[in-house]
Amino acid sequence: MGETVITKRAFLTAAAAAVVRPLTAESQPPNFVFIYADDLGYGDLGAYGSKMPTWNLNAMARDGVRFGQFYSASPVCSPSRAALLTGRYPTRVGVPRVLFPNDTNGLPDSEATLAQVLKTRRYKTMCVGKWHLGSLPQYLPTNRGFDEFFGVPYSHDMSPLPLLHNTEIVEQPANLETLTLRYTEQALRFIAESKDSPFFLYFAHNVPHIPLVPSPRFRGVSGFGLYGDVVREMDWSVGWILRALKHHGLAANTLVMFSSDNGPWYQGSTGRLLGRKGETYEGGVRVPLIAYYPGRIPRGGFRRGVATTMDILPTLANLAGASLPAQPLDGVDIWPLLAGEREQVDREAFLYFDDWNVQCARQGRWKLHMARYNSFPWTPGPPGGRVNLPLVNPELYDLEVDPEEGYDVARDNPATVADMRANVEQMLWTFPEQVRISWFDTMNRQVEWTPTGALPACKP
Amino acid sequence: MGETVITKRAFLTAAAAAVVRPLTAESQPPNFVFIYADDLGYGDLGAYGSKMPTWNLNAMARDGVRFGQFYSASPVCSPSRAALLTGRYPTRVGVPRVLFPNDTNGLPDSEATLAQVLKTRRYKTMCVGKWHLGSLPQYLPTNRGFDEFFGVPYSHDMSPLPLLHNTEIVEQPANLETLTLRYTEQALRFIAESKDSPFFLYFAHNVPHIPLVPSPRFRGVSGFGLYGDVVREMDWSVGWILRALKHHGLAANTLVMFSSDNGPWYQGSTGRLLGRKGETYEGGVRVPLIAYYPGRIPRGGFRRGVATTMDILPTLANLAGASLPAQPLDGVDIWPLLAGEREQVDREAFLYFDDWNVQCARQGRWKLHMARYNSFPWTPGPPGGRVNLPLVNPELYDLEVDPEEGYDVARDNPATVADMRANVEQMLWTFPEQVRISWFDTMNRQVEWTPTGALPACKP
Repeated sequence: MGETVITKRAFLTAAAAAVVRPLTAESQPPNFVFIYADDLGYGDLGAYGSKMPTWNLNAMARDGVRFGQFYSASPVCSPSRAALLTGRYPTRVGVPRVLFPNDTNGLPDSEATLAQVLKTRRYKTMCVGKWHLGSLPQYLPTNRGFDEFFGVPYSHDMSPLPLLHNTEIVEQPANLETLTLRYTEQALRFIAESKDSPFFLYFAHNVPHIPLVPSPRFRGVSGFGLYGDVVREMDWSVGWILRALKHHGLAANTLVMFSSDNGPWYQGSTGRLLGRKGETYEGGVRVPLIAYYPGRIPRGGFRRGVATTMDILPTLANLAGASLPAQPLDGVDIWPLLAGEREQVDREAFLYFDDWNVQCARQGRWKLHMARYNSFPWTPGPPGGRVNLPLVNPELYDLEVDPEEGYDVARDNPATVADMRANVEQMLWTFPEQVRISWFDTMNRQVEWTPTGALPACKP
Repeated sequence: MGETVITKRAFLTAAAAAVVRPLTAESQPPNFVFIYADDLGYGDLGAYGSKMPTWNLNAMARDGVRFGQFYSASPVCSPSRAALLTGRYPTRVGVPRVLFPNDTNGLPDSEATLAQVLKTRRYKTMCVGKWHLGSLPQYLPTNRGFDEFFGVPYSHDMSPLPLLHNTEIVEQPANLETLTLRYTEQALRFIAESKDSPFFLYFAHNVPHIPLVPSPRFRGVSGFGLYGDVVREMDWSVGWILRALKHHGLAANTLVMFSSDNGPWYQGSTGRLLGRKGETYEGGVRVPLIAYYPGRIPRGGFRRGVATTMDILPTLANLAGASLPAQPLDGVDIWPLLAGEREQVDREAFLYFDDWNVQCARQGRWKLHMARYNSFPWTPGPPGGRVNLPLVNPELYDLEVDPEEGYDVARDNPATVADMRANVEQMLWTFPEQVRISWFDTMNRQVEWTPTGALPACKP
């Protein structure tokens, strides 16, 4: 874990390929723009099969690369972002669940963020949009490696919702109608002001998280309701970012990425994946990843290799020539996937966490489900509360032929089940104690099975 | 309602088309084989995008026709079957919910079944497999128009599970491992014995309902687990039925249909549809329909027109030249769809019932959601119990571009919402009182909304 599998040498090999420009020692390190949607599903972009109008993102995918198996490290907000910015599992960095306005914790200072890593290479850094990694001043972006912050500290269904510039409140509650517009203006200003140094723009949209509040000019334009309207507006914003990079002559030296923090919530599409936000089925955690880097990433690719948000930090750090943080990383450098040089990168099993609980693991084509909550996260819980329960018969899915997790093949592959489970139990020992406590608590829970053995219910 | 939109004249016009053989007065009425899967999802057949091996059904689809918008009249078992056999909504015929072994009710005698309708034209009739419309003798198939019955009275996750021949118990509990094999033997015998008269074979499989018990020779053959194995075995059975029809020279005069009673339960695939068995999202009620009638139905068609299980009775009755039952029907003759003569048939709005509750309505491309339960049907309910709640903001989906029900477009189409709702409220008056009571109870329920207005919870 934490090993960067892709060495600089492999990277240079990639750079030497015909489709890409050589990276010379004199080159200025590349700029990075990471655009993050909030609760956008795997099936919500034209480039991923949707009929919604997302023309700019489609064009970005057409001229760049799409990933078909890119995972968020969590099915909910705060932990996903913690993983993105640290390259580590949210349970490892102490942000395993969604933060609320009154929470006094945040991403601990002991964790280096991607912005801090890039600061060692003198990047200008800005965070625009939703933060959600701690709302006390010491946790805000400007104390976590970002030179500048313009955005909100948490989700826009929480209140009070201050709009902050750095650590100062500029409006409260933030006017939701104009947020995307104002975020975009700030991002464009930052790009214009950063022409002469490498920069990292982290642009975390509030949309299409509920409530769905498009600006007046985007109301009703999509033909796909308020959800489609806010996605259309976000796509419009993406278009401006791409045009600005071109306008300032930065496009050829800027890697632009687009993804989402987790699956869709009440509205939106998972493509054909099962489950939604808050669940460790594929629909809760598999998200789009589009990367655009003209001349360096070949046009129009679709990558089938597994990758995760935790891979962003080591990948960008290596591209920038920055040293990796001292803490061992869970992500790996996925440049060979981005560049189309390899189909897969070597990696450990990917663990699907919900809160402190390991529920599933992914290894190669296989996904093993070992535990599951006894109720859906967003509906009123059952008497006795919502409990994570062991699956007495763990379920195994072959995601290569069954991405929908429709056909449990555990009985036909007992050795795979046993191996994966043993591997997970070994991996647990590298995690904080709370992860192991939750695991053993879950596995020791008495479960009452229906006559069919299909549906767990906690014993009273 | 109940009007058979497609007249005999339209039917003869169809028969005169180039691709079909003319139906002359001297023709023997066609034979009918209706094969019904139990809990098979919209996405569970190769012919519907699955990678599972369902070669015989795929071939049947290739040589026949597939429907892309065929609906069961209920997301659960008994009501679906009541609708199939009566051509009427389950709430209208008094079977709105699943029957359990101790229930003393069943499909009332006042309702004519498809078998009874065909008996008026001297059809031989047999029911093989799962009945689930009443387990007391007076409700069993042999008292509802079937000359013969070989099967079980209800689902095979219920006990005791007697295997019946007519009304006699031949085995208890039924040996699940050999059920599909024995059903198939009986069906083949019936076909062989019915060469000289028109016949109706209603073959209702127990699979892939849980528990998943393939016969030993089908264990592990599918590569898609136990679910795949039982589906593969059912597909094997379908192959034998088709071969038997050919062998006995009956294929050209037999309309074979295949469908499912509702969406998939714990395992299985809905394709890309939302929801599963027990829900009125598309995934709960949209099911495959394959129809095969060589020489009469053009090969390889895919029909986009809306059709429902309630259409089977009027369609087959008209093909047989039988009079329709006295009760007004909810289904319409879909022969023009089957024959590829028309894209749509005129019909009233289709209502999505869950139990006594109207939750959604379908009209043209639009689906309106008006009510929803506050919890998933198969997990432990919330404190206070599972309650059907009104959607304060009804949701409208354009199924033509959004079959996943991902993008609510109610706000953009207020007139459609108002019209559809008014139409539903008018239709309610043709239903039994309990439907209206449930509707008004639901609509009068006090609902507490989350700040975002997205998730209903019943007020304590």
